[in-house]
Amino acid sequence: MLFSQGIIVAPATAIGGAIAVIRVSGEGSIALCDKVFRGRKPLAETATHTIHYGNIVDEGRVIDDVVVALFRSPYSYTGEQSVEISTHGSRYIVSTIIKLLCSLGARLAEPGEFSARAFAAGRIDLSQAEAVADIIAADSGAAHAVAATQMRGGYSDTLNTLRDKLIELTSLLELELDFGEEDVEFADRTRLESMLRTTSDVVLRLRESFHTGNAIRNGVGVAIVGAPNVGKSTLLNRLVGEQRAMVSDIAGTTRDTIEESIVIDDIRFRFIDTAGIRTTDDTLERMGIERTLAAVAKAQIIISMAEPDGAFEQLDTTDNQTVIRVVNKADTTSDRTATDALYISARENQGIDALRTALRNTVDTTALYRGEAVVSNLRHYEALSAAYTALTAAQTALANNIASELLAEDIRLAINHIGEITGAITSDTILQSIFSSFCIGK
Amino acid sequence: MLFSQGIIVAPATAIGGAIAVIRVSGEGSIALCDKVFRGRKPLAETATHTIHYGNIVDEGRVIDDVVVALFRSPYSYTGEQSVEISTHGSRYIVSTIIKLLCSLGARLAEPGEFSARAFAAGRIDLSQAEAVADIIAADSGAAHAVAATQMRGGYSDTLNTLRDKLIELTSLLELELDFGEEDVEFADRTRLESMLRTTSDVVLRLRESFHTGNAIRNGVGVAIVGAPNVGKSTLLNRLVGEQRAMVSDIAGTTRDTIEESIVIDDIRFRFIDTAGIRTTDDTLERMGIERTLAAVAKAQIIISMAEPDGAFEQLDTTDNQTVIRVVNKADTTSDRTATDALYISARENQGIDALRTALRNTVDTTALYRGEAVVSNLRHYEALSAAYTALTAAQTALANNIASELLAEDIRLAINHIGEITGAITSDTILQSIFSSFCIGK
Repeated sequence: MLFSQGIIVAPATAIGGAIAVIRVSGEGSIALCDKVFRGRKPLAETATHTIHYGNIVDEGRVIDDVVVALFRSPYSYTGEQSVEISTHGSRYIVSTIIKLLCSLGARLAEPGEFSARAFAAGRIDLSQAEAVADIIAADSGAAHAVAATQMRGGYSDTLNTLRDKLIELTSLLELELDFGEEDVEFADRTRLESMLRTTSDVVLRLRESFHTGNAIRNGVGVAIVGAPNVGKSTLLNRLVGEQRAMVSDIAGTTRDTIEESIVIDDIRFRFIDTAGIRTTDDTLERMGIERTLAAVAKAQIIISMAEPDGAFEQLDTTDNQTVIRVVNKADTTSDRTATDALYISARENQGIDALRTALRNTVDTTALYRGEAVVSNLRHYEALSAAYTALTAAQTALANNIASELLAEDIRLAINHIGEITGAITSDTILQSIFSSFCIGK
Repeated sequence: MLFSQGIIVAPATAIGGAIAVIRVSGEGSIALCDKVFRGRKPLAETATHTIHYGNIVDEGRVIDDVVVALFRSPYSYTGEQSVEISTHGSRYIVSTIIKLLCSLGARLAEPGEFSARAFAAGRIDLSQAEAVADIIAADSGAAHAVAATQMRGGYSDTLNTLRDKLIELTSLLELELDFGEEDVEFADRTRLESMLRTTSDVVLRLRESFHTGNAIRNGVGVAIVGAPNVGKSTLLNRLVGEQRAMVSDIAGTTRDTIEESIVIDDIRFRFIDTAGIRTTDDTLERMGIERTLAAVAKAQIIISMAEPDGAFEQLDTTDNQTVIRVVNKADTTSDRTATDALYISARENQGIDALRTALRNTVDTTALYRGEAVVSNLRHYEALSAAYTALTAAQTALANNIASELLAEDIRLAINHIGEITGAITSDTILQSIFSSFCIGK
């Protein structure tokens, strides 16, 4: 598929609205469309970025009244000459026109083939192409902001600057190697050390931003834990505003983990309603408890619930997890002794806004909205981790006065890993797997 | 909603593809979009039917990279100035941009409001607007052709010609009435009679075309009937090529009517698999038989099945129904005595193509593909029926030498009924009910 040839065609929109758009791209696509388009004049005679009303005709039979948009090379998404045909939003019409164009020399595009061509033409880099898929999937303000920054190339700029700096470093080292016999040191070791530390810090910051970026992109996992009957399901219902989870006064009612999600401001939170943690003889319920523990292990936020006179659960948490302590049924008592806890009443809707604010505040989006790159893609995280490891090795080598050849090798490794993200250095297999996960028409 | 004011906005495509299109229409819509669009230059300074790449920005925050298409009045679907914004196909982006435009003075369009404006501006008539909804729903070649002819106004032309002729008739009659005192006959009675008969014939032909048009638009209903175990379900499975209906050797297995549909060439056929017709003590099965009879009454085509040595069911059919006789299990015998029947073996896939051809040939689409108007809309059928009744009354009045006043009244009635179809004469209530059944964004 990569660096593919020929004219490709695909529906660019979903079917089911008032209109649908068919995308055609590749050298000769304008001439191809002229074979079926009847407007005021042939598309070949019209300027780029113009729109033309007319009919799509198959052997005299009018398939549809359409509006055709013309993009001449290189001023299109793919960089090639392209035509976008807006038809009425009918599956029959869209498939008939696509079949017609295919019978005249086009072929149905593979998933992501338009974006792959945009990448091949240097119109977008790999991380921008990935961001296109992310922006389509984004369902909260922050997830959208992460993808939008990446798509518009802000992230790529950061990476390219990093890469340029590292390339400068290796050049200095290589110059030194060329003159190795003469025992000249072109690269000032102190300056090298400072440059390495700076770039390494940036890579580390990007890598660490994945914690936030991943949470934003996929939603922040929240586990609500506490003793049976403490009101976990009631709280979940209160938060999601719907009676999805089964609520009952019978202890141990909740056996299945049910996932609900809500958006607070600009962040999506995925709630995991968990079975009450307690010793039980009930096998089914014991399975529920195991699931609870698994949910707690995966959650980024744990809402630990207790009754006014009850104790909080003992939880084993990691550094990346935030625990929010909540005392429920606060309407039944005036006791407010637990100073590190929020007092709420899920049933009476008291203190819920404060809890929402506490949840929202667990995600720091300052850097994101300042326009800084936030990593949200696991592939990028892994590449950054590998780059960081290589840079750390380089720093150690420098500190231990290891030969410049080995030092340069470490830095080149870091350069390659960073290049993988933007696609400056990437195998066809990786490209193939990225683009083929796109939808058709993209 | 009709003759509505202000700037309206709505998604014009379904969400879920690579791109989505937002439609904005109304005076001031270009200036409104300029408040959020950042491109090479303001949209206000660009020509109609041009495309512009840029960003949609909300207080400095980029919502999306978009391509904006500009339509200046009156060269748009609605006849007003309009903007179409192509965004990435994300629900979040589409809803954010629509909310943004609404916060700046637009409002969300009601269903069908764009088409209602096109109608109000005289860009399309009512039957064309209805055809837009039909063309979106069309799922076979013939259904598409019916809607396409109607949408492109071929049908409206026929109706307008009819209406003009009838208006000419009433003018002649009214002239006569004006000079009534002088007992002058301006209208040649023989010519009047001939004109009335011609228009009446055209109205009748249109009205009669509904039989075909309705079948094409909604699919041709086919009931397969025959004794238990004759192979009705096997035939259905063979025709639809899927094992949807439950097949068994036990007599009386099929109790529920299951509807399957297939497209043969350009026509959709809706198959109604029916319970075996026989006397039974089984209540459930008796209900199945009642349903069979109801299905037979509604079907346009009845495939009457028998075994080689069996008899065909006695069927009460109407003039509008076609019976295709089929002898199944023809592979088990060489007997071919029933000359009016097709010999098939559903199980062995023998004679199925001939049956398909017989099915397809029940629908005469000659007139349709010759470009003649075919009525497929019940509202139009009813208006044509009323017009025909009025024209018949006029003919009778003329034959009986009834006063010209009454004759003219009958013709005016016919004119009004024909005018209802194109919307030349239609109440706001009818318009409202037609447009509100459209999807949003149309």
